[in-house]
Amino acid sequence: MNFREKRPRVVILGAGFGGLSAATRLGRADVDVTLIDRQNYHVFQPLLYQVATATLSPADIAVPIRSTFRDQKNTNVLLGNVAGIDRARREVTLDDDRRFPYDYLIVATGARHAYFGRDDWEPAAPGLKRIEDATEIRRRILLAFEKAETEDDDERRRELLNFVIVGGGPTGVEMAGAIIELARTALVRDFRHIDPSSARVLLVEAGPRLLPTFPEDLSAFARTTLLRMGVEVRLDCRVTHCAPGGVEIGEERIGARTIIWAAGVEASPAARWLGVTGDRAGRVAVDENLRLIDDARIFVVGDTAAAPWTKGRLVPGIAPAAKQMGDHAARAVLADIAGRAPAPFSYRHRGNLATIGRKSAVVDFGPVRLKGLLAWLIWGAAHIYFLIGFRNRIIVMMQWMWAYVTLRGGVRLITGSTKLP
Amino acid sequence: MNFREKRPRVVILGAGFGGLSAATRLGRADVDVTLIDRQNYHVFQPLLYQVATATLSPADIAVPIRSTFRDQKNTNVLLGNVAGIDRARREVTLDDDRRFPYDYLIVATGARHAYFGRDDWEPAAPGLKRIEDATEIRRRILLAFEKAETEDDDERRRELLNFVIVGGGPTGVEMAGAIIELARTALVRDFRHIDPSSARVLLVEAGPRLLPTFPEDLSAFARTTLLRMGVEVRLDCRVTHCAPGGVEIGEERIGARTIIWAAGVEASPAARWLGVTGDRAGRVAVDENLRLIDDARIFVVGDTAAAPWTKGRLVPGIAPAAKQMGDHAARAVLADIAGRAPAPFSYRHRGNLATIGRKSAVVDFGPVRLKGLLAWLIWGAAHIYFLIGFRNRIIVMMQWMWAYVTLRGGVRLITGSTKLP
Repeated sequence: MNFREKRPRVVILGAGFGGLSAATRLGRADVDVTLIDRQNYHVFQPLLYQVATATLSPADIAVPIRSTFRDQKNTNVLLGNVAGIDRARREVTLDDDRRFPYDYLIVATGARHAYFGRDDWEPAAPGLKRIEDATEIRRRILLAFEKAETEDDDERRRELLNFVIVGGGPTGVEMAGAIIELARTALVRDFRHIDPSSARVLLVEAGPRLLPTFPEDLSAFARTTLLRMGVEVRLDCRVTHCAPGGVEIGEERIGARTIIWAAGVEASPAARWLGVTGDRAGRVAVDENLRLIDDARIFVVGDTAAAPWTKGRLVPGIAPAAKQMGDHAARAVLADIAGRAPAPFSYRHRGNLATIGRKSAVVDFGPVRLKGLLAWLIWGAAHIYFLIGFRNRIIVMMQWMWAYVTLRGGVRLITGSTKLP
Repeated sequence: MNFREKRPRVVILGAGFGGLSAATRLGRADVDVTLIDRQNYHVFQPLLYQVATATLSPADIAVPIRSTFRDQKNTNVLLGNVAGIDRARREVTLDDDRRFPYDYLIVATGARHAYFGRDDWEPAAPGLKRIEDATEIRRRILLAFEKAETEDDDERRRELLNFVIVGGGPTGVEMAGAIIELARTALVRDFRHIDPSSARVLLVEAGPRLLPTFPEDLSAFARTTLLRMGVEVRLDCRVTHCAPGGVEIGEERIGARTIIWAAGVEASPAARWLGVTGDRAGRVAVDENLRLIDDARIFVVGDTAAAPWTKGRLVPGIAPAAKQMGDHAARAVLADIAGRAPAPFSYRHRGNLATIGRKSAVVDFGPVRLKGLLAWLIWGAAHIYFLIGFRNRIIVMMQWMWAYVTLRGGVRLITGSTKLP
């Protein structure tokens, strides 16, 4: 195509890790970039569980997108919700009917938690993908202890102090560890009528082991560490029903006022917008350049993409992968404009990290596997390093040091309603 | 009365400055203290406007009450909403029907913003008393700039960039200064289609001067400082109507999507609970010991009390006054238990402080009056000093230094809905 008359317009949907890295790569190019997100901030999702468990504040892990791109003059940042993509006219439509024509489109709208057809479970068992999810879960956890403190009925008090986490992936493991630590350290001396350390934290996983994407020895280590911390781990257990007040695992009913859903994610509705059929998790198939199979103007990156990797596996849904994909899509756009064929995307897997609790984590660098304190230090350093924004790094480091030294949670505010669902 | 058989029960309603200081004073006494608040945290209200204007996070100015009293073993902290006070049975009733008998009751439930019979204005013009108010106002301010960025209609864009603050007391002055600074520093380089510094900030005061409780020269200084910063100050102007989209001042209509109410407060419904008649602002008359005139078991302190001071004036509704009253009520309770007559309450007025903007404030210490930079440094030091919790002090200082050095606001998150009312 001939771009001599006007600058090519690149529209990026979503300012997660993928969208942000694409926009950054296009910063100095001779293109017009429009970056659209439904929020005005980028969230550092790997630390969202620390907002949900009252260690960090929302602002500690979020930065205004606009502010990030203030000096990148070719980039327009917009707040908006995508309603559809008109591929024939090459336009993105927002839900307020604004339309944005594109020459290239990068779809990076991420994933959300999935209930596998049981969306009616969501009110009872919220998932953890957005800042609002995190403050809602924080509200429920803290409120459960508050209500337990004044509950006279033994049974009801027990249900208030039962916390069920559905799903044994990294989020489930992190939440289980953080809740038991909250109960046994920060809260333990604050109550008069209950013993917060008697709280029961149940981690329920449908598969045979925790952290299924990690090597088996690290899965086993995560399990024994959680058991030692006091978490009950149930493997090969499928939750068959969730309702306010408890879960069912086959015949067994477990009364619990706080249920957290960490059992699965599905891609954003990008497949629907694009008029293609997604895979089982809603992801959109892309070619070796992360383009739609039949539309070279459209790239799909991050958790929304089903991008081939190695041995028939897909590129995993983790932050570094999304970053690499966003960066690649931007490079491919620039190559196409310049009339060059882009080199195919090649994912460099740097490893998997998951924290289990204070002073323990697992790190899988392929040949090198670490667990325990050293892994935890690497986990902490990596997260501080990748946190966007100098201010956030300093503040998060200080909050962690404070929490570590004093064993007090940092941010134990119940905002919003003080009624439990 | 004879307390030899059982420990006297002191119930404190409200964990603001008054309630907190009463509870602290009773900490080592041989009494049972029950401290009830509708939130699980104490808010440092003097800095609430900085949450509303995106400099600080909610957690920076709030501390969990329970955590504050964790080592004070005679004190029970409870989350609950007061429904009524049964003076005959000496019981406080909560809205979930829990009942708390008292031997002494200290009512410290503060004040809320008042619309002088026009409560229907509240959705259009929220006030600033609670954390939720602050995040709602922050949401509206930031969203107004976002919506303006994509608004094509000149008139509607202008209304999005108009900010009207009703009321020229300390809160109004602080909000006006902080909003114009947000527009002219932190936001100024972030937008492509609008010039945030063209935002119009209007401060409307019904009386003849700003900061009516300060000496006239400081009021005049506040006005000229705000004018120099770009705020439009309207004195002797009464807002006759508020609605989503604008205010009316007599015949004049000013279109504005963001209206903030700082025009007045009224006491909490304590008068109703107690079955007495409050004054015009709903405050409860108390004797020289801050007791109800006809009930020596009940103390009323802080913004809820109409406590006589000097020259026919009442003790002012400021944090240090509430603290002193709470402390006095606790001492009077202990004196009564010991069979002593308490010394009457004598308010020590240490001064008035109000900040106008970055690097400017006014301080009225009576004989000594300061304005400008020195006053601002004193204001900052005083607020850091009185912030509860070592962690909060450090974090707030860091946030301020960051904002000061970089001219970027710290916490520009739009949480909740991204629709304007």
